Amino acid sequence: MFIEAIKHRAANPYLYARNKETIDIMIETKKDDVDSIGLLYADPHNFEGEKWQYEITYMVKTGSTKLTDYWKISIKPEYRRLRYGFRCIGNDKKEIIYTERGFSNAVPKDINAFFCFPFLHEIDLFQAPEWVKDTVWYQIFPERFANGDDSLNPKNTLPWASEAPSPSNFFGGDIQGVIDHLGYLSDLGITGIYFTPIFKSYSNHKYDTIDYFEIDPHFGDKASLRKLVEECHKRGMKVMLDAVFNHSGYYFEPFQDVLKNQEKSRYKEWFHLKDFPVSGEDFPNYDAFGHVASMPKLNTANKELKQYLLKVARYWIEEFDIDGWRLDVANEVDHVFWREFRNIVKETKPDVYILGEVWHDSIKWLQGDQFDAVMNYPFTNSAVEYFATQNIDSQNFKDNITNVLHMYPENVNEFAFNLLDSHDTARILTMANKNKNRVKLLYLFQFSFIGSPCIYYGDEIGMTGGDDPECRDCMEWNEEKQDRDLYQFVKKLIQMRKEISGFGNKSQFQFLKAENDVIAYLKKKDEQRLLFVLNNSNRKKITNIEILANKSVKELFANKYMTFNDNTKVTIDEYGYHCFQILQKN
Amino acid sequence: MFIEAIKHRAANPYLYARNKETIDIMIETKKDDVDSIGLLYADPHNFEGEKWQYEITYMVKTGSTKLTDYWKISIKPEYRRLRYGFRCIGNDKKEIIYTERGFSNAVPKDINAFFCFPFLHEIDLFQAPEWVKDTVWYQIFPERFANGDDSLNPKNTLPWASEAPSPSNFFGGDIQGVIDHLGYLSDLGITGIYFTPIFKSYSNHKYDTIDYFEIDPHFGDKASLRKLVEECHKRGMKVMLDAVFNHSGYYFEPFQDVLKNQEKSRYKEWFHLKDFPVSGEDFPNYDAFGHVASMPKLNTANKELKQYLLKVARYWIEEFDIDGWRLDVANEVDHVFWREFRNIVKETKPDVYILGEVWHDSIKWLQGDQFDAVMNYPFTNSAVEYFATQNIDSQNFKDNITNVLHMYPENVNEFAFNLLDSHDTARILTMANKNKNRVKLLYLFQFSFIGSPCIYYGDEIGMTGGDDPECRDCMEWNEEKQDRDLYQFVKKLIQMRKEISGFGNKSQFQFLKAENDVIAYLKKKDEQRLLFVLNNSNRKKITNIEILANKSVKELFANKYMTFNDNTKVTIDEYGYHCFQILQKN
Repeated sequence: MFIEAIKHRAANPYLYARNKETIDIMIETKKDDVDSIGLLYADPHNFEGEKWQYEITYMVKTGSTKLTDYWKISIKPEYRRLRYGFRCIGNDKKEIIYTERGFSNAVPKDINAFFCFPFLHEIDLFQAPEWVKDTVWYQIFPERFANGDDSLNPKNTLPWASEAPSPSNFFGGDIQGVIDHLGYLSDLGITGIYFTPIFKSYSNHKYDTIDYFEIDPHFGDKASLRKLVEECHKRGMKVMLDAVFNHSGYYFEPFQDVLKNQEKSRYKEWFHLKDFPVSGEDFPNYDAFGHVASMPKLNTANKELKQYLLKVARYWIEEFDIDGWRLDVANEVDHVFWREFRNIVKETKPDVYILGEVWHDSIKWLQGDQFDAVMNYPFTNSAVEYFATQNIDSQNFKDNITNVLHMYPENVNEFAFNLLDSHDTARILTMANKNKNRVKLLYLFQFSFIGSPCIYYGDEIGMTGGDDPECRDCMEWNEEKQDRDLYQFVKKLIQMRKEISGFGNKSQFQFLKAENDVIAYLKKKDEQRLLFVLNNSNRKKITNIEILANKSVKELFANKYMTFNDNTKVTIDEYGYHCFQILQKN
Repeated sequence: MFIEAIKHRAANPYLYARNKETIDIMIETKKDDVDSIGLLYADPHNFEGEKWQYEITYMVKTGSTKLTDYWKISIKPEYRRLRYGFRCIGNDKKEIIYTERGFSNAVPKDINAFFCFPFLHEIDLFQAPEWVKDTVWYQIFPERFANGDDSLNPKNTLPWASEAPSPSNFFGGDIQGVIDHLGYLSDLGITGIYFTPIFKSYSNHKYDTIDYFEIDPHFGDKASLRKLVEECHKRGMKVMLDAVFNHSGYYFEPFQDVLKNQEKSRYKEWFHLKDFPVSGEDFPNYDAFGHVASMPKLNTANKELKQYLLKVARYWIEEFDIDGWRLDVANEVDHVFWREFRNIVKETKPDVYILGEVWHDSIKWLQGDQFDAVMNYPFTNSAVEYFATQNIDSQNFKDNITNVLHMYPENVNEFAFNLLDSHDTARILTMANKNKNRVKLLYLFQFSFIGSPCIYYGDEIGMTGGDDPECRDCMEWNEEKQDRDLYQFVKKLIQMRKEISGFGNKSQFQFLKAENDVIAYLKKKDEQRLLFVLNNSNRKKITNIEILANKSVKELFANKYMTFNDNTKVTIDEYGYHCFQILQKN
């Protein structure tokens, strides 16, 4: 047995409380190296005389990559306490016991040698708003979605879509424009909108805030936001706003005060200034987002600034009843700030969704004390590289997605914000080399995956665009120029996700096959079994799906019933897909 | 290369800020599998055109066990941000690049593929009181240390040491007794006292609190504590009290109120009650410490109780100027409580030491937001099993201690509370089968190790005793019955630790040898090099210590100068030891 490859520690993601009565335990072993793992466990006070009385239950292999097997088990300990160890039986038939003291040939006699889950406290649970699990998000970049009120247009506003988007041009998109098109979003099936920033700012993207307590006048005013939230709520849509707390804009009054009063500014501790005079000319002599002088980094450890930002966080919830905060550049802000932010937000309205923008491993923010979710870029990268750019093969894709599913606790995964692209990336159709079939597979995978899917505005009607600023083009409202077929496809996926419980979030995901440009995966929910088979190539494929033997199924896209005998060959057209609902045995 | 065994994640203990300008990075590989690891790193915005410009610096192997090599490096990034990856060269001369996206043959072009340390915030640092690094602790179990005031004796108090300690007998130890013997502790060199509980309680061990705001009347009163703290502080000794917040005692007034008023008690949410009527008869129908009815578990998630306990935490600091809180059964209390506890404590007096009783892996409490340290039982177990019970050999000991040094960040290790035994274990001399020589080696190792050492009262004069209650015997004050030789040895170690900077805490620890019952390790502090050689057997040993070749040294115990040529054989008597201060090259 290759014990050097065994990975476990009494901490996330290897050990965590899934809910108030269940503890999940995970261990990693080298791929195909271990035949079975028994969990030895009991309450720490479960003694008969000197001898600790433990049970053994076998763990389940929940995923494999070319390097790793993942094993999991859930335990419900009567007294909410647990000591445990592992009995690993290698494919060499050798047995080894693994505890906190390391590897041994016999079960340790000292109970302190075992791993420990000391006590399951409900207050320590990772808990996020239940509604997120059923939400289908739509991301809107307000300057480019719809112009509903010409009177708000900034000067030099260009006619809608008359030019390519540039870092500095304006097309007059506003809040009224969104309100005007809520029917469109309703029709599509959207149940949550994530807005990039809408507070008063200098640029078209509004990530350089001037005033955190004002709506950008080109977008509307507080009345417009109030109306937007009301109209959304009427339609069962949640509203998430973008909190840009890592940095302010250059024209944020406190920063202007610093520029004016320098050492004497009462705001000098609100920023990370390096020396005086403070200057944004050339290379800023203060910390900034990147080295971008127009985005001076905020010193979120400063108590006064912290109070100001927490007031912002509370204000828009309390006064406008928003449902979520997306946190820009969240990982560059300190953890102490985010813990206080969470306390304030959840105190104000317990089911507000807190979504951090973190492109990297986010385990430090997902322990229950900070975020409810992060933008799930590890999912995004894998999906895009497989279906859109086709840079990785089926096996790599399976490995990456298996890792994604095991890098955080399961009760965290269910709230992940699964995007395919955003205002910070090229659009999926462009990444897919304008091959719409690949985009359909992307959507199919996204909507049948664990987490909360998000559509970037316009992708659903086939808009294209490369990296920023190209991906921020004006929404195409002319139906004749919209790809209505793609729209209908996305609409159908959303419907399926809503109507078929195993399709969506609250189910288990398991790869059955990943080879030769075909992937097959099973979604399980209670007794329901959905089998997805996707062909990520431009050639027809025939693949054997053993699990279909002697099963009756309903193919959900064709709405067709079929029965398999011992011949379980499935044909999939180029870039084709099936979703078989397994009905029963013959 | 055995890439399955490579372990790293962008989180503790693999990635952490050591201080406000330094980021430490650690990676594990299979023992002897990798020849070198280069860290590829740079600021994320360090681009020339499209190409990210990174540097490469080689990592240092900081420890090895029979399974694992540990590699570390410290980086001081100019803008406090870092992206990084690893270039591993195997002993098969193959090269592989390891990033957050996994293993590849080439350096990824996408900077987002790299591991990320987003921004180093001082407020997120793990920070503990500097004074702890130099503190030598002494643990006192007050009922058994000294009886300084007969008038406080509980009824049925037994004459001092007239009987063996039992779970229920009393000998009249009190606070005045401690005050009377501070001269003894000063002479020994003690600079901090950890008291097991002194608040009003039922039992002799006082872990079953009746009143958190009163001194146990058998120990004294608030005036006695005030005097104790003053007298300690005069002598340069810190005072740490024991906070028993996991459970109260049966006679805690709120619990008595529950027993009396049952469902109607206003305190029913202060406990974890399962049904009514609440009863401690037989098996308690409420959560308790273990299943001990006299110790009902406190519901630290209850806001009212939380305020009460936090007031306790603040009160004894504010009013009595104590220097530390040791937290009983700390891992069975919720994390939310401990975060608030830390805030209150540090707000009241920033350099109070917060020490959690956690016998297991404690990484979840040592992230900077909860504890300053835990009772370092992984250290204790290894030291006791090697030197005292001799259950493990030198190689196992080296492996265990190497793991101990790498399981938490380095700036956490420096504050570890390194005990050899306590009121919860047998005494070391008893565990060592009454072999004093082994106890001396234990002390030598403890005092030359990283962390803050603690002596359990009476061990230093050769007291014996098995598991609780035997280990809680009355302190032996008759000098003729004290082992004065052992006392002098411990006193000398304490002096050496204080006077020789490399001996103690603020230095690096490195094993040179661990075989055949001999261990040798080097302590480095700036230019200082101390070489320790210990013979853990009852036979004289001759061992070769290559590092001594052509060096002049001072043997610090014999106070003798020696010079080595190419012959680096060192003789060590049975259970003998050397500490060579390396002076210079010949």
